[in-house]
Amino acid sequence: MTAIRYEHVKTCKQTGARLGIVHTPHGSFETPTFMPVGTQATVKTMSPEELKEMNAGIILSNTYHLWVRPGNDIIREAGGLHKFMNWDRPILTDSGGFQVFSLSDLRDIKEEGVHFRNHLNGDKLFLSPEKAMEIQNDLGSDIMMAFDECPPYPADYDYMKSSVERTSRWAERCLEAHKRPQDQGLFGIVQGGEYEELRKQSARDLVSLDFPGYAIGGLSVGEPKDVMNRVLDFTTPLLPADKPRYLMGVGSADSLIDGAIRGVDMFDCVLPTRIARNGTLMTSEGRMNIKKAQYKTDFRPIDEHCDCYTCRNYTRAYVNHLIRAEETFGLRLTSYHNLRFLIHLMEQVRQAIREDRLGDFREAFFEAYGFNKPNAKNF
Amino acid sequence: MTAIRYEHVKTCKQTGARLGIVHTPHGSFETPTFMPVGTQATVKTMSPEELKEMNAGIILSNTYHLWVRPGNDIIREAGGLHKFMNWDRPILTDSGGFQVFSLSDLRDIKEEGVHFRNHLNGDKLFLSPEKAMEIQNDLGSDIMMAFDECPPYPADYDYMKSSVERTSRWAERCLEAHKRPQDQGLFGIVQGGEYEELRKQSARDLVSLDFPGYAIGGLSVGEPKDVMNRVLDFTTPLLPADKPRYLMGVGSADSLIDGAIRGVDMFDCVLPTRIARNGTLMTSEGRMNIKKAQYKTDFRPIDEHCDCYTCRNYTRAYVNHLIRAEETFGLRLTSYHNLRFLIHLMEQVRQAIREDRLGDFREAFFEAYGFNKPNAKNF
Ligand SMILES: [Zn+2]
Ligand SMILES: [Zn+2]
Repeated sequence: MTAIRYEHVKTCKQTGARLGIVHTPHGSFETPTFMPVGTQATVKTMSPEELKEMNAGIILSNTYHLWVRPGNDIIREAGGLHKFMNWDRPILTDSGGFQVFSLSDLRDIKEEGVHFRNHLNGDKLFLSPEKAMEIQNDLGSDIMMAFDECPPYPADYDYMKSSVERTSRWAERCLEAHKRPQDQGLFGIVQGGEYEELRKQSARDLVSLDFPGYAIGGLSVGEPKDVMNRVLDFTTPLLPADKPRYLMGVGSADSLIDGAIRGVDMFDCVLPTRIARNGTLMTSEGRMNIKKAQYKTDFRPIDEHCDCYTCRNYTRAYVNHLIRAEETFGLRLTSYHNLRFLIHLMEQVRQAIREDRLGDFREAFFEAYGFNKPNAKNF
Repeated sequence: MTAIRYEHVKTCKQTGARLGIVHTPHGSFETPTFMPVGTQATVKTMSPEELKEMNAGIILSNTYHLWVRPGNDIIREAGGLHKFMNWDRPILTDSGGFQVFSLSDLRDIKEEGVHFRNHLNGDKLFLSPEKAMEIQNDLGSDIMMAFDECPPYPADYDYMKSSVERTSRWAERCLEAHKRPQDQGLFGIVQGGEYEELRKQSARDLVSLDFPGYAIGGLSVGEPKDVMNRVLDFTTPLLPADKPRYLMGVGSADSLIDGAIRGVDMFDCVLPTRIARNGTLMTSEGRMNIKKAQYKTDFRPIDEHCDCYTCRNYTRAYVNHLIRAEETFGLRLTSYHNLRFLIHLMEQVRQAIREDRLGDFREAFFEAYGFNKPNAKNF
């Protein structure tokens, strides 16, 4: 019996996108879904109650950050991450690999693991498949990630091939080191960059290890949109249909829809909360920078098609004032809106799959948002 | 018919403190009460719903800050401050005088008003009784404050006397300039520093003008605790028993209790939210700096006697982590707790008045908090 089970509900006749339910020890969530990111055991500026109110089915937290502060021992002692942060719905944790490869300039990759330095105080640290499992077992997340190497983009074929092979060996060590398979489902991560052959090799290796779910890593690392879509085109068919598929680090509205169409079930990204803190909002008519002077006397809601707390209760003028005045409540209002925007988008995507019209939905959404314009930015 | 009416409920037989209800166009609140401060049309880090949940009966906002940003014209256009910030309970606004005298180094006090410079961009500004009324009429607060001079502490007798006289003349001009007496109650502000004779003169002048309520200004400006209590001892008896009394800028637990005992009904201060942002918490056993290392593994609530959202759902260890990690949600949790602590304190004060035992309550509270210790800090 595995901790994570994927229930397939239906496939969109127009696009092939899948509607499903992922069952976890902390309840179930519908897919395709967007997962808000709670890096340091909190989704920035939000309360757990607000996340529930906006219909967040699952959140993500970062193993590396919790390891260095407050420490996985403290979270274990607290009764696990759910209890520590007062969140009783599912949690997914990454492996720490991405942070090791992105935050640290000084790192030394060995077969055993990676030596690097703490980004907070410069202390020497060592992360390995076994250590990543130990930390995540302490955190008690419902979905854990295998420790993988995250190669830079672009990387040449030979480097990528050796990296994929190491990631496969590490994945096997993760499975062996994982102490709580009944409570926590471990996902393997398919790497291979933009090389179809290497994606195939990686998928073959990992599928043979029979993980309860699979992530697609190494995308959203700077490559053009069409490269991401092409990689998904040849990667998702390699993954078992009865397991959930998670595309890591993707949070722009166009990529969520295009990923769902290519058979992805789960997405996460810091984008909605990060841009919110700078006053950038996603709306049904495209991006809006709420700090602009034109909004000072605009007493309409941010997005007339949004049902969120912010849009139900406050005007553009008030949010403009709060962000200009650097008031925390402004960050709450913009973060809430952007998160709800993506969660609501995925509700619309699921409804469109149900009704076999995700292609039509995509066309209308892209047109209204402005994604069809030349040089459109992807958020 | 005045916008503000004070209903006296009972007087504590043990202390003389008064229990009452203040009726306003946006509903009523029980007194003695503590008013959270929402300087820039938001109580820092909090939502209106959270303020209601913690039983805030009235909040304060700052005329000067709203005047310079976003501008009283914008708030008027929004339909007033209540609508702008989505708060439908009473609001009190100060006159802007305190900020003119505390934020600006360059100021020129004339009989007509005060010339000074905007603290944000250095622009020349002019604030007068008429202008302070115009701004507050635009804001639409339930309780407005007369524009007064706030002399520095200490100030010599002659300076204070001329200042008190100017404040009285300005108070009369405020009454004349106030355009909405049916909707908004204007309070006069008694000044006079620590000089009994001048407090008497100020009170006599203002009471003769028949304001619907009175504030006591010029305290909590650096004077010792016993000076504040002595000034209250001879000032509150000068004020009419059928009008509310507001002690400006006082938010330490001991001074709230000692003020109530001297017949004060309303208090405000930025203290609870300001210290919260630095991790300092008020508890029934005194101050706590939640950032201390000892709380890293302390899985108890902040205050076992507190019923607030933070104490019901989170541990000291989690709050310690959030504040160290500089997470906004940590500021929400500490701000919520400190505000609820003072609001809860005033609920206990009112209950003690009802039961004629506020003196006993004071003794027990001071002992537990540590106010009886030599050199106790007053928060
Ligand atoms: Zn919204
Ligand atoms: Zn509390």
